[in-house]
Amino acid sequence: MPQGQPAVIPDDGLTTRARRDRPLLIVHTGDGKGKSTAAFGLALRGWAQGWPVGVFQFVKSAKWRIGEERALRTLTATGEGGTVAWHKMGEGWSWVQRRIDPDAQPADAAREGWEQIRRDLAAQTYRLYVLDELTYPLKWGWLDVAEVVETLLTRPGRQHVVITGRAAPPQLLDAADLVTEMTKVKHPMDAGQKGQRGIEW
Amino acid sequence: MPQGQPAVIPDDGLTTRARRDRPLLIVHTGDGKGKSTAAFGLALRGWAQGWPVGVFQFVKSAKWRIGEERALRTLTATGEGGTVAWHKMGEGWSWVQRRIDPDAQPADAAREGWEQIRRDLAAQTYRLYVLDELTYPLKWGWLDVAEVVETLLTRPGRQHVVITGRAAPPQLLDAADLVTEMTKVKHPMDAGQKGQRGIEW
Repeated sequence: MPQGQPAVIPDDGLTTRARRDRPLLIVHTGDGKGKSTAAFGLALRGWAQGWPVGVFQFVKSAKWRIGEERALRTLTATGEGGTVAWHKMGEGWSWVQRRIDPDAQPADAAREGWEQIRRDLAAQTYRLYVLDELTYPLKWGWLDVAEVVETLLTRPGRQHVVITGRAAPPQLLDAADLVTEMTKVKHPMDAGQKGQRGIEW
Repeated sequence: MPQGQPAVIPDDGLTTRARRDRPLLIVHTGDGKGKSTAAFGLALRGWAQGWPVGVFQFVKSAKWRIGEERALRTLTATGEGGTVAWHKMGEGWSWVQRRIDPDAQPADAAREGWEQIRRDLAAQTYRLYVLDELTYPLKWGWLDVAEVVETLLTRPGRQHVVITGRAAPPQLLDAADLVTEMTKVKHPMDAGQKGQRGIEW
Protein backbone atom coordinates (compact mmCIF):
# COMPACT_ATOMS: atom_id res chain seq x y z
CA MET A 1 0.00 0.00 0.00
CA PRO A 2 1.13 3.58 -0.46
CA GLN A 3 3.06 4.88 2.51
CA GLY A 4 1.11 8.14 2.52
CA GLN A 5 3.75 10.24 0.82
CA PRO A 6 2.41 12.07 -2.20
CA ALA A 7 4.63 12.10 -5.26
CA VAL A 8 4.33 15.84 -5.67
CA ILE A 9 3.18 18.72 -3.49
CA PRO A 10 0.84 20.74 -5.69
CA ASP A 11 0.89 24.52 -5.78
CA ASP A 12 -2.87 24.79 -5.30
CA GLY A 13 -2.99 27.00 -2.23
CA LEU A 14 -4.65 24.27 -0.13
CA THR A 15 -3.46 23.07 3.26
CA THR A 16 -2.52 19.40 3.50
CA ARG A 17 -5.70 18.76 5.47
CA ALA A 18 -7.93 20.56 2.98
CA ARG A 19 -6.28 18.69 0.11
CA ARG A 20 -6.60 15.38 1.93
CA ASP A 21 -10.27 15.85 2.66
CA ARG A 22 -11.30 16.72 -0.87
CA PRO A 23 -14.22 14.60 -1.98
CA LEU A 24 -13.25 11.84 -4.40
CA LEU A 25 -14.82 10.59 -7.58
CA ILE A 26 -13.70 6.98 -7.86
CA VAL A 27 -14.18 4.60 -10.81
CA HIS A 28 -13.68 0.82 -10.75
CA THR A 29 -13.71 -0.45 -14.31
CA GLY A 30 -12.21 -3.22 -16.47
CA ASP A 31 -13.28 -6.77 -17.32
CA GLY A 32 -11.98 -8.38 -14.13
CA LYS A 33 -13.63 -9.28 -10.85
CA GLY A 34 -13.79 -7.07 -7.81
CA LYS A 35 -15.17 -3.80 -9.17
CA SER A 36 -18.38 -3.91 -7.16
CA THR A 37 -16.92 -5.96 -4.34
CA ALA A 38 -14.31 -3.29 -3.68
CA ALA A 39 -16.99 -0.58 -3.85
CA PHE A 40 -19.01 -2.37 -1.17
CA GLY A 41 -15.81 -2.68 0.83
CA LEU A 42 -15.66 1.13 0.74
CA ALA A 43 -19.26 1.17 1.98
CA LEU A 44 -18.06 -0.89 4.95
CA ARG A 45 -15.44 1.75 5.71
CA GLY A 46 -18.01 4.50 5.33
CA TRP A 47 -20.32 2.72 7.76
CA ALA A 48 -17.46 2.44 10.23
CA GLN A 49 -16.91 6.21 9.92
CA GLY A 50 -20.54 6.79 10.82
CA TRP A 51 -21.43 8.08 7.37
CA PRO A 52 -24.76 7.96 5.62
CA VAL A 53 -24.11 5.80 2.56
CA GLY A 54 -26.39 5.50 -0.47
CA VAL A 55 -26.20 2.46 -2.77
CA PHE A 56 -27.87 2.63 -6.19
CA GLN A 57 -27.82 -0.60 -8.18
CA PHE A 58 -28.17 -0.11 -11.91
CA VAL A 59 -28.74 -3.78 -12.66
CA LYS A 60 -31.89 -5.74 -13.38
CA SER A 61 -30.95 -8.77 -11.34
CA ALA A 62 -30.87 -8.28 -7.59
CA LYS A 63 -29.37 -11.72 -7.01
CA TRP A 64 -25.77 -10.72 -7.42
CA ARG A 65 -25.48 -8.43 -4.40
CA ILE A 66 -27.73 -10.12 -1.85
CA GLY A 67 -24.83 -10.91 0.45
CA GLU A 68 -23.60 -7.33 0.57
CA GLU A 69 -27.12 -5.97 0.89
CA ARG A 70 -27.95 -8.23 3.79
CA ALA A 71 -24.68 -7.44 5.56
CA LEU A 72 -24.96 -3.67 5.11
CA ARG A 73 -28.63 -3.65 6.18
CA THR A 74 -27.69 -5.67 9.25
CA LEU A 75 -24.90 -3.23 10.08
CA THR A 76 -27.29 -0.30 9.71
CA ALA A 77 -29.77 -1.99 12.07
CA THR A 78 -27.15 -2.27 14.82
CA GLY A 79 -27.10 1.53 15.14
CA GLU A 80 -23.37 1.34 15.93
CA GLY A 81 -22.06 3.09 12.86
CA GLY A 82 -23.46 4.85 9.84
CA THR A 83 -26.46 4.00 7.72
CA VAL A 84 -26.69 2.36 4.33
CA ALA A 85 -29.72 3.10 2.17
CA TRP A 86 -30.12 0.54 -0.61
CA HIS A 87 -31.90 1.33 -3.86
CA LYS A 88 -32.42 -1.17 -6.68
CA MET A 89 -33.45 -0.45 -10.20
CA GLY A 90 -34.18 -4.18 -10.62
CA GLU A 91 -37.13 -4.00 -8.22
CA GLY A 92 -38.29 -0.54 -9.23
CA TRP A 93 -36.64 2.24 -7.24
CA SER A 94 -37.93 2.30 -3.68
CA TRP A 95 -38.73 6.03 -3.69
CA VAL A 96 -40.98 5.82 -6.75
CA GLN A 97 -44.64 5.80 -5.71
CA ARG A 98 -45.99 4.39 -8.95
CA ARG A 99 -43.20 2.04 -9.82
CA ILE A 100 -41.72 1.92 -13.27
CA ASP A 101 -41.50 -1.64 -14.50
CA PRO A 102 -37.74 -1.97 -15.07
CA ASP A 103 -38.20 -4.88 -17.46
CA ALA A 104 -40.55 -2.92 -19.68
CA GLN A 105 -38.71 0.41 -19.63
CA PRO A 106 -35.16 0.01 -18.41
CA ALA A 107 -34.03 3.31 -19.93
CA ASP A 108 -36.79 5.16 -18.06
CA ALA A 109 -35.91 3.35 -14.85
CA ALA A 110 -32.26 4.26 -15.25
CA ARG A 111 -33.11 7.93 -15.80
CA GLU A 112 -35.42 7.89 -12.78
CA GLY A 113 -32.53 6.54 -10.71
CA TRP A 114 -30.13 9.18 -11.96
CA GLU A 115 -32.63 11.98 -11.24
CA GLN A 116 -32.85 10.81 -7.63
CA ILE A 117 -29.05 10.78 -7.38
CA ARG A 118 -29.01 14.36 -8.70
CA ARG A 119 -31.50 15.37 -6.01
CA ASP A 120 -29.51 13.58 -3.32
CA LEU A 121 -26.23 15.15 -4.43
CA ALA A 122 -27.83 18.61 -4.37
CA ALA A 123 -29.27 17.95 -0.90
CA GLN A 124 -26.03 16.29 0.30
CA THR A 125 -28.06 13.32 1.50
CA TYR A 126 -25.11 10.92 1.67
CA ARG A 127 -21.41 11.13 2.41
CA LEU A 128 -20.63 8.19 0.09
CA TYR A 129 -22.52 7.08 -3.03
CA VAL A 130 -22.03 3.62 -4.53
CA LEU A 131 -23.37 3.84 -8.09
CA ASP A 132 -23.13 0.18 -8.97
CA GLU A 133 -22.88 -0.59 -12.70
CA LEU A 134 -23.74 2.98 -13.67
CA THR A 135 -21.41 2.59 -16.65
CA TYR A 136 -23.97 0.46 -18.51
CA PRO A 137 -26.79 3.02 -18.83
CA LEU A 138 -24.07 5.47 -19.87
CA LYS A 139 -22.75 3.05 -22.49
CA TRP A 140 -26.23 2.30 -23.81
CA GLY A 141 -27.05 5.98 -24.19
CA TRP A 142 -29.83 5.93 -21.57
CA LEU A 143 -28.07 8.69 -19.64
CA ASP A 144 -26.18 11.63 -21.11
CA VAL A 145 -22.50 11.23 -20.26
CA ALA A 146 -21.71 14.95 -20.38
CA GLU A 147 -24.59 15.80 -18.08
CA VAL A 148 -23.69 13.05 -15.61
CA VAL A 149 -20.04 14.15 -15.52
CA GLU A 150 -20.99 17.81 -15.09
CA THR A 151 -23.33 16.95 -12.20
CA LEU A 152 -20.65 14.87 -10.51
CA LEU A 153 -17.94 17.52 -10.93
CA THR A 154 -20.14 20.30 -9.53
CA ARG A 155 -21.57 18.36 -6.60
CA PRO A 156 -21.47 20.41 -3.40
CA GLY A 157 -19.78 19.62 -0.10
CA ARG A 158 -17.67 16.58 0.67
CA GLN A 159 -19.53 13.75 -1.01
CA HIS A 160 -17.51 10.77 -2.25
CA VAL A 161 -18.82 8.87 -5.27
CA VAL A 162 -17.79 5.39 -6.42
CA ILE A 163 -18.91 4.22 -9.86
CA THR A 164 -18.48 0.62 -11.03
CA GLY A 165 -18.85 -1.23 -14.30
CA ARG A 166 -17.07 -2.21 -17.48
CA ALA A 167 -16.27 0.20 -20.28
CA ALA A 168 -16.40 3.44 -18.32
CA PRO A 169 -16.61 6.31 -20.84
CA PRO A 170 -13.44 8.39 -21.34
CA GLN A 171 -15.11 11.60 -20.12
CA LEU A 172 -15.86 9.88 -16.81
CA LEU A 173 -12.29 8.62 -16.47
CA ASP A 174 -11.00 12.13 -17.19
CA ALA A 175 -13.22 13.56 -14.48
CA ALA A 176 -12.37 10.93 -11.86
CA ASP A 177 -9.80 11.41 -9.09
CA LEU A 178 -9.06 7.71 -8.69
CA VAL A 179 -9.45 5.06 -11.36
CA THR A 180 -8.66 1.39 -10.92
CA GLU A 181 -8.92 -1.10 -13.72
CA MET A 182 -9.68 -4.63 -12.62
CA THR A 183 -8.04 -6.89 -15.19
CA LYS A 184 -8.95 -10.53 -15.59
CA VAL A 185 -5.78 -12.59 -15.47
CA LYS A 186 -7.46 -15.95 -14.91
CA HIS A 187 -11.08 -16.87 -14.22
CA PRO A 188 -12.60 -20.25 -13.34
CA MET A 189 -15.31 -19.80 -15.99
CA ASP A 190 -12.51 -20.13 -18.52
CA ALA A 191 -12.07 -23.65 -17.15
CA GLY A 192 -15.77 -24.42 -17.32
CA GLN A 193 -16.70 -23.48 -13.76
CA LYS A 194 -19.89 -21.52 -13.10
CA GLY A 195 -20.43 -18.90 -10.41
CA GLN A 196 -21.07 -20.08 -6.88
CA ARG A 197 -22.63 -18.89 -3.64
CA GLY A 198 -20.52 -16.71 -1.40
CA ILE A 199 -18.13 -15.91 -4.22
CA GLU A 200 -20.31 -14.40 -6.93
CA TRP A 201 -23.17 -13.19 -4.74
CA MET B 1 -20.60 -9.29 -14.98
CA PRO B 2 -20.31 -12.74 -16.53
CA GLN B 3 -23.69 -14.19 -17.45
CA GLY B 4 -22.86 -17.54 -15.85
CA GLN B 5 -22.08 -19.34 -19.07
CA PRO B 6 -18.69 -21.03 -18.96
CA ALA B 7 -16.57 -20.69 -22.08
CA VAL B 8 -15.90 -24.41 -22.25
CA ILE B 9 -17.36 -27.52 -20.64
CA PRO B 10 -14.36 -29.47 -19.40
CA ASP B 11 -14.06 -33.22 -19.75
CA ASP B 12 -13.25 -33.71 -16.06
CA GLY B 13 -15.95 -36.18 -15.09
CA LEU B 14 -17.53 -33.72 -12.64
CA THR B 15 -21.19 -32.75 -12.53
CA THR B 16 -21.98 -29.06 -13.05
CA ARG B 17 -22.78 -28.76 -9.35
CA ALA B 18 -19.58 -30.46 -8.25
CA ARG B 19 -17.57 -28.30 -10.61
CA ARG B 20 -19.36 -25.15 -9.46
CA ASP B 21 -18.76 -25.88 -5.81
CA ARG B 22 -15.05 -26.53 -6.13
CA PRO B 23 -13.11 -24.48 -3.62
CA LEU B 24 -11.35 -21.50 -5.15
CA LEU B 25 -7.89 -20.10 -4.67
CA ILE B 26 -8.24 -16.40 -5.52
CA VAL B 27 -5.45 -13.84 -5.89
CA HIS B 28 -5.89 -10.04 -6.02
CA THR B 29 -2.63 -8.49 -7.11
CA GLY B 30 -1.29 -5.47 -9.01
CA ASP B 31 -0.34 -1.93 -8.02
CA GLY B 32 -3.86 -0.51 -8.00
CA LYS B 33 -6.42 0.02 -5.26
CA GLY B 34 -9.10 -2.44 -4.24
CA LYS B 35 -7.14 -5.66 -3.70
CA SER B 36 -7.90 -5.90 0.01
CA THR B 37 -11.17 -3.99 -0.20
CA ALA B 38 -12.54 -6.56 -2.64
CA ALA B 39 -11.28 -9.40 -0.42
CA PHE B 40 -13.17 -7.95 2.54
CA GLY B 41 -16.19 -7.62 0.26
CA LEU B 42 -15.94 -11.41 -0.23
CA ALA B 43 -15.83 -11.75 3.56
CA LEU B 44 -19.16 -9.88 3.64
CA ARG B 45 -20.63 -12.41 1.22
CA GLY B 46 -19.22 -15.25 3.26
CA TRP B 47 -20.78 -13.81 6.41
CA ALA B 48 -24.13 -13.58 4.60
CA GLN B 49 -23.81 -17.28 3.68
CA GLY B 50 -23.34 -18.13 7.35
CA TRP B 51 -19.73 -19.19 6.88
CA PRO B 52 -16.93 -19.11 9.40
CA VAL B 53 -14.41 -16.69 7.90
CA GLY B 54 -10.81 -16.27 9.01
CA VAL B 55 -8.89 -13.06 8.31
CA PHE B 56 -5.10 -13.02 8.66
CA GLN B 57 -3.44 -9.64 8.20
CA PHE B 58 0.19 -9.84 7.21
CA VAL B 59 0.88 -6.17 7.78
CA LYS B 60 2.52 -4.34 10.63
CA SER B 61 0.12 -1.42 10.70
CA ALA B 62 -3.36 -2.19 11.88
CA LYS B 63 -4.64 1.26 10.98
CA TRP B 64 -5.47 0.49 7.38
CA ARG B 65 -8.24 -2.02 7.99
CA ILE B 66 -9.95 -0.67 11.09
CA GLY B 67 -13.16 0.09 9.22
CA GLU B 68 -13.51 -3.41 7.84
CA GLU B 69 -12.49 -5.00 11.12
CA ARG B 70 -15.05 -3.04 13.10
CA ALA B 71 -17.80 -3.78 10.57
CA LEU B 72 -17.05 -7.51 10.37
CA ARG B 73 -16.77 -7.83 14.16
CA THR B 74 -20.09 -6.01 14.52
CA LEU B 75 -21.70 -8.36 11.99
CA THR B 76 -20.34 -11.37 13.87
CA ALA B 77 -21.78 -10.03 17.12
CA THR B 78 -25.29 -9.82 15.65
CA GLY B 79 -25.39 -13.62 15.40
CA GLU B 80 -27.44 -13.30 12.22
CA GLY B 81 -24.91 -14.71 9.77
CA GLY B 82 -21.51 -16.30 9.88
CA THR B 83 -18.52 -15.44 12.03
CA VAL B 84 -15.36 -13.55 11.21
CA ALA B 85 -12.24 -14.28 13.24
CA TRP B 86 -9.66 -11.53 12.85
CA HIS B 87 -5.95 -12.14 13.34
CA LYS B 88 -3.29 -9.47 13.07
CA MET B 89 0.40 -9.95 12.75
CA GLY B 90 0.86 -6.25 13.58
CA GLU B 91 -0.33 -6.76 17.14
CA GLY B 92 1.22 -10.18 17.58
CA TRP B 93 -1.06 -13.03 16.53
CA SER B 94 -3.93 -13.44 18.95
CA TRP B 95 -3.41 -17.19 19.42
CA VAL B 96 0.22 -16.89 20.46
CA GLN B 97 0.57 -17.15 24.24
CA ARG B 98 3.99 -15.58 24.49
CA ARG B 99 3.69 -13.01 21.77
CA ILE B 100 6.39 -12.52 19.22
CA ASP B 101 7.24 -8.85 18.87
CA PRO B 102 6.44 -8.28 15.19
CA ASP B 103 8.65 -5.21 15.06
CA ALA B 104 11.65 -7.11 16.30
CA GLN B 105 11.14 -10.34 14.35
CA PRO B 106 8.73 -9.84 11.47
CA ALA B 107 9.94 -12.94 9.63
CA ASP B 108 9.27 -15.09 12.70
CA ALA B 109 5.86 -13.50 13.13
CA ALA B 110 5.00 -14.17 9.50
CA ARG B 111 6.04 -17.82 9.82
CA GLU B 112 4.01 -18.16 13.01
CA GLY B 113 0.99 -16.82 11.13
CA TRP B 114 1.47 -19.21 8.25
CA GLU B 115 1.83 -22.19 10.60
CA GLN B 116 -1.54 -21.34 12.15
CA ILE B 117 -3.11 -21.10 8.69
CA ARG B 118 -1.69 -24.56 7.89
CA ARG B 119 -3.27 -25.94 11.06
CA ASP B 120 -6.60 -24.25 10.29
CA LEU B 121 -6.61 -25.54 6.70
CA ALA B 122 -5.90 -29.08 7.93
CA ALA B 123 -8.68 -28.78 10.54
CA GLN B 124 -11.03 -27.04 8.06
CA THR B 125 -11.61 -24.30 10.62
CA TYR B 126 -12.95 -21.77 8.12
CA ARG B 127 -14.92 -21.82 4.89
CA LEU B 128 -13.19 -18.66 3.61
CA TYR B 129 -9.68 -17.41 4.40
CA VAL B 130 -8.64 -13.82 3.70
CA LEU B 131 -4.84 -13.82 3.69
CA ASP B 132 -4.31 -10.09 3.47
CA GLU B 133 -0.96 -9.02 2.02
CA LEU B 134 0.47 -12.53 2.20
CA THR B 135 2.42 -11.76 -0.97
CA TYR B 136 4.91 -9.64 0.96
CA PRO B 137 6.35 -12.32 3.26
CA LEU B 138 6.52 -14.51 0.15
CA LYS B 139 8.37 -11.82 -1.77
CA TRP B 140 10.76 -11.15 1.07
CA GLY B 141 11.63 -14.85 1.42
CA TRP B 142 10.15 -15.16 4.91
CA LEU B 143 7.91 -17.98 3.70
CA ASP B 144 8.77 -20.67 1.21
CA VAL B 145 6.67 -20.13 -1.91
CA ALA B 146 6.72 -23.78 -2.99
CA GLU B 147 5.63 -24.97 0.43
CA VAL B 148 2.85 -22.39 0.66
CA VAL B 149 1.55 -23.27 -2.81
CA GLU B 150 1.69 -27.01 -2.07
CA THR B 151 -0.24 -26.52 1.17
CA LEU B 152 -2.88 -24.44 -0.58
CA LEU B 153 -3.28 -26.89 -3.46
CA THR B 154 -3.67 -29.89 -1.17
CA ARG B 155 -6.04 -28.28 1.33
CA PRO B 156 -8.94 -30.59 2.19
CA GLY B 157 -12.65 -29.98 1.81
CA ARG B 158 -14.28 -26.89 0.34
CA GLN B 159 -12.21 -24.05 1.74
CA HIS B 160 -11.95 -20.85 -0.33
CA VAL B 161 -8.77 -18.81 0.00
CA VAL B 162 -8.26 -15.18 -1.07
CA ILE B 163 -4.71 -13.80 -1.10
CA THR B 164 -3.98 -10.10 -1.61
CA GLY B 165 -0.90 -8.01 -2.24
CA ARG B 166 1.39 -6.68 -4.91
CA ALA B 167 3.87 -8.78 -6.82
CA ALA B 168 2.28 -12.19 -6.30
CA PRO B 169 4.88 -14.84 -7.20
CA PRO B 170 4.36 -16.69 -10.52
CA GLN B 171 3.98 -20.07 -8.80
CA LEU B 172 1.06 -18.69 -6.80
CA LEU B 173 -0.58 -17.27 -9.93
CA ASP B 174 -0.15 -20.61 -11.67
CA ALA B 175 -1.83 -22.39 -8.77
CA ALA B 176 -4.74 -19.93 -8.46
CA ASP B 177 -8.19 -20.49 -9.95
CA LEU B 178 -9.05 -16.80 -10.20
CA VAL B 179 -6.56 -13.98 -10.53
CA THR B 180 -7.48 -10.30 -10.83
CA GLU B 181 -4.90 -7.62 -11.33
CA MET B 182 -5.87 -4.23 -9.95
CA THR B 183 -4.16 -1.68 -12.17
CA LYS B 184 -3.69 1.92 -11.15
CA VAL B 185 -5.01 4.16 -13.90
CA LYS B 186 -5.15 7.33 -11.84
CA HIS B 187 -4.57 7.99 -8.15
CA PRO B 188 -5.03 11.19 -6.13
CA MET B 189 -1.59 10.78 -4.54
CA ASP B 190 -0.21 11.49 -7.99
CA ALA B 191 -1.83 14.90 -7.64
CA GLY B 192 -0.41 15.45 -4.16
CA GLN B 193 -3.39 14.20 -2.17
CA LYS B 194 -2.80 12.04 0.90
CA GLY B 195 -4.99 9.19 2.08
CA GLN B 196 -8.16 10.02 3.99
CA ARG B 197 -10.57 8.49 6.46
CA GLY B 198 -13.27 6.26 5.07
CA ILE B 199 -11.42 5.81 1.81
CA GLU B 200 -8.03 4.41 2.79
CA TRP B 201 -9.04 2.85 6.11
